[in-house]
Amino acid sequence: MAAAYTGVVPIRWDDSKAELVWLDNSQIPWKEEYISSKDPERLIKAIQGLEVRGAPILGEAGAYGIALIANNSPNSIDAILRNVSEEGSRLSSARPTAINLAWGAHLVWDVISKAAERGEAPSDIKQLAIGAAKRIQLENIAATHMIGENGESLIKDGDVLVTVCNAGTLACDGIGTSTAPMRVAWSRGRRFKVLVTYTAPLYQGARLTAWELHRDGIPVQVITDNMAGHLIREEKATAIWAGADRILGRPGSESGTVYNKIGTFGLALMAKAFRDCGTQVNMYVAAPTSTIDPATSVAGVRIEQRSPSEVESVLGAIRVVPDGVGVLNPAFDRTPPEMVSAIVTELGIASAPYDVSIPRLMSNGDSMVRQ
Amino acid sequence: MAAAYTGVVPIRWDDSKAELVWLDNSQIPWKEEYISSKDPERLIKAIQGLEVRGAPILGEAGAYGIALIANNSPNSIDAILRNVSEEGSRLSSARPTAINLAWGAHLVWDVISKAAERGEAPSDIKQLAIGAAKRIQLENIAATHMIGENGESLIKDGDVLVTVCNAGTLACDGIGTSTAPMRVAWSRGRRFKVLVTYTAPLYQGARLTAWELHRDGIPVQVITDNMAGHLIREEKATAIWAGADRILGRPGSESGTVYNKIGTFGLALMAKAFRDCGTQVNMYVAAPTSTIDPATSVAGVRIEQRSPSEVESVLGAIRVVPDGVGVLNPAFDRTPPEMVSAIVTELGIASAPYDVSIPRLMSNGDSMVRQ
Repeated sequence: MAAAYTGVVPIRWDDSKAELVWLDNSQIPWKEEYISSKDPERLIKAIQGLEVRGAPILGEAGAYGIALIANNSPNSIDAILRNVSEEGSRLSSARPTAINLAWGAHLVWDVISKAAERGEAPSDIKQLAIGAAKRIQLENIAATHMIGENGESLIKDGDVLVTVCNAGTLACDGIGTSTAPMRVAWSRGRRFKVLVTYTAPLYQGARLTAWELHRDGIPVQVITDNMAGHLIREEKATAIWAGADRILGRPGSESGTVYNKIGTFGLALMAKAFRDCGTQVNMYVAAPTSTIDPATSVAGVRIEQRSPSEVESVLGAIRVVPDGVGVLNPAFDRTPPEMVSAIVTELGIASAPYDVSIPRLMSNGDSMVRQ
Repeated sequence: MAAAYTGVVPIRWDDSKAELVWLDNSQIPWKEEYISSKDPERLIKAIQGLEVRGAPILGEAGAYGIALIANNSPNSIDAILRNVSEEGSRLSSARPTAINLAWGAHLVWDVISKAAERGEAPSDIKQLAIGAAKRIQLENIAATHMIGENGESLIKDGDVLVTVCNAGTLACDGIGTSTAPMRVAWSRGRRFKVLVTYTAPLYQGARLTAWELHRDGIPVQVITDNMAGHLIREEKATAIWAGADRILGRPGSESGTVYNKIGTFGLALMAKAFRDCGTQVNMYVAAPTSTIDPATSVAGVRIEQRSPSEVESVLGAIRVVPDGVGVLNPAFDRTPPEMVSAIVTELGIASAPYDVSIPRLMSNGDSMVRQ
């Protein structure tokens, strides 16, 4: 049985035109439109407007963005280094919470700096940058398949799973992160159902995750965010499956803290309350190890506050908040490690205590690019 | 200092035209439109379309609806009784979960039956029916003020409160139920902030509760449903304030079970998880004692499943669910009594164990109409 897979390529480098091509996530499910551009400013706009989104894809976008800046530069090492430094800083800080954007940008930046130090020809430096970005993408894709392999045994026949936001192909390339164990389990004949939460204010669950899984033939039902508690009980849900934008990996009690789309912490709280009442509801997080931040503490992570307009109106189509009334719009939340049942990565599964399991996982192997 | 109050009359009987007038809740906050009708079918449509909504207001609508049917009838006792029986049954079962609709309808029905038995003149029977419906409304309004008095001491200076759906004037008449303690506390100089949850799929929190409280000058911020967990922690929320569509009052362990708008149980689960982690977040329910159902068990309450179209599209304005993808749309959920910190009624406050406190509360007094 073939693995369930939507066959969507959310971002890619077009060699013939030397430009970047991405699927505009903000228009799914209404329209499948691919945007092509050579302009790093257009890419920054795409990142801030969530045309390109999801932690792993942001890593790819950061990497390709630096490659694009280098490739657009005049054929001089100084010009390349200057452009990458100036335009690259703005690119890598276009969104603050996901670690991957800056991570991908810095990897390619590093490749460029080292090649410049070695005195390589500007045209070769450009090719090295593009190649490094492609390797990051290939590695991301491979990671999703390994996340699927590592996590699939956590899904049993008859399970009911709850998702938040989109941590699928559109966000993570390949077969997605939180969707990867589902796709692998499904391809091996296990049958289950997925309750996809809306994920206001941008509805990435309804729009994107439901779209992907439905294309794969996996049964999905969309629910509004406030239905989760009731339906976990009534539909006998067995697990929440979330992705992650950043996972703290610094030794100490904060290790295993998960930053993810707003709503993740609420689901984790509910899962905990169910477990405390004797009903096992697991809180699973799936993410590549590139999401693990070995340096930052909780105090050091800034939660992105997005524009009030996103909450005031639903997708710009209908205003639901009365004039003059304020709103809050944090894009992410923080789930403490004691509420996370397991973190599934391409290198294996980590569980509590995370300050032991995460370093052990990381020493299991390391990425091609980071060697 | 005057009590904060929006000054809205959500439903009333127009004596001069012998018709019912209601504020179309489905158009707030975009338009304040009052609908007048003599037609009970139009009222049923208004109830099902949520122009008229909220448990206590449904009690009034049920009562006025029966009075309307009686008043429209030919001047014969047989005709009145036949119409009230036939059209009244459809009216009182127009929505299944809130007990109040049938409760209000049956109270007026009973007044009519007894007057008919006594052989009163048809025109007098009609006046008695209208009078009984008006008394139910007056009693509802009085109840909200007493709920405010009884509950206001639960709100302290500096509190941050979280609401679900709308249990304000628009749903409950007077100064609302869950909003009543807020309005009384505010009028006595206590200062606090209210985080109003969206309450998908019909956004009554954003549209109605924010509209009401903002008119009163009480600081509100609208948040999407999935932000609650994060913002309870980050904004240091001290309590959830919910209304109720039905509260079980039958002796036994189910006593104190609260049926309310979908999302209430999720907030109760989160509040419990916070309390279990050492942070006191109370789960308060405010409702008149007419909401208490002394007869039915959990097994006997049907949760209304509403049309998929409500979830597929946001307020009919924008489709967020991909074509072909299924949805779930339960309108209410059930919160078990052990997660409810207190139930504030017009007769006093009940707290666990509810199978003791609810009967004690009910024996405190009884309503004018029910005597």
